[in-house]
Amino acid sequence: MNKTQQQQLINAIHTIPDYPVKGIMFRDVTSLLEDAEAFKLVIELLENKYKGKGFTKVVGTEARGFLFGAPLALALNIGFIPVRKPGKLPRPTYSQAYQLEYGEDILEIHQDALTPEDNVLIIDDLLATGGTIEATTKLIRRLGAQVQEAGFVISLPDLGGEKCLAEINITPYSLIQYQGE
Amino acid sequence: MNKTQQQQLINAIHTIPDYPVKGIMFRDVTSLLEDAEAFKLVIELLENKYKGKGFTKVVGTEARGFLFGAPLALALNIGFIPVRKPGKLPRPTYSQAYQLEYGEDILEIHQDALTPEDNVLIIDDLLATGGTIEATTKLIRRLGAQVQEAGFVISLPDLGGEKCLAEINITPYSLIQYQGE
Repeated sequence: MNKTQQQQLINAIHTIPDYPVKGIMFRDVTSLLEDAEAFKLVIELLENKYKGKGFTKVVGTEARGFLFGAPLALALNIGFIPVRKPGKLPRPTYSQAYQLEYGEDILEIHQDALTPEDNVLIIDDLLATGGTIEATTKLIRRLGAQVQEAGFVISLPDLGGEKCLAEINITPYSLIQYQGE
Repeated sequence: MNKTQQQQLINAIHTIPDYPVKGIMFRDVTSLLEDAEAFKLVIELLENKYKGKGFTKVVGTEARGFLFGAPLALALNIGFIPVRKPGKLPRPTYSQAYQLEYGEDILEIHQDALTPEDNVLIIDDLLATGGTIEATTKLIRRLGAQVQEAGFVISLPDLGGEKCLAEINITPYSLIQYQGE
């Protein structure tokens, strides 16, 4: 990614101060989706990063992971597997709990969505603490599939996501990093 | 769409009997997403249907509408606007309630997502009763934007969605129809 592309993405991602709570600078990917050229650039940059690496499936987490994971799967010419909130997937599922700031949440994957022959790329909009990606990784590995890489539009390195993912042998990559969050 | 393409899509959409309740034949688009060739065909067919018609934005509803709406927006080289469940969008929103089988739900759109200059295409995975599309249409029109067309992968004509949409001057189009549901 060159400087011009980086600036184009930074311009397209609007910042909303004090959302959802005071003191948080919220990075809004919906403004990027509204900008057709910036959205296309994101998918092209991720495609260039991950093409020819032998991935067989993209996994994306409900709901914002769908917005980038599904187009990238199409660009890489591989299938897309959704990881969803409980009760949303129609076939038999495995579940994985993960910690939120207050309480916990659960993610699910179809039991037949992946096999040990699959080499999976996880895609999400934003890497913060890494909790949802850790839960997603556990679900993928429970199906016997390989997963070692996760791609993001944005990462907030100060929130510990890279350390969390390093502990489970996931290498993250992000297009834009915001320090000091 | 030719017969071979139609059969390819029908083969890719698995049917799950008695889900979520007994007597319902659930049409599962996740099996289509897993099939890279079928997913690509869906986006190409919708692109061919809607390209060159002057649309300026695609609107898709959380969460399955994201899976088809975002890739189609990229294919049409226009921006994507998400309609989401309450509390998910960071900028000021308008809300619209709609009826579910039991109770009601609410959808939201960013107040600044569209202008009167926009000509919007709604995309979702499945047209059933049309309730979510009616609510989405109201949100789009509240922003002053034009909207007259909605595209789907699947429609279930016996559930009344086409009549519902006709009453609000929305013309639906679907790739696959399942009668007798």
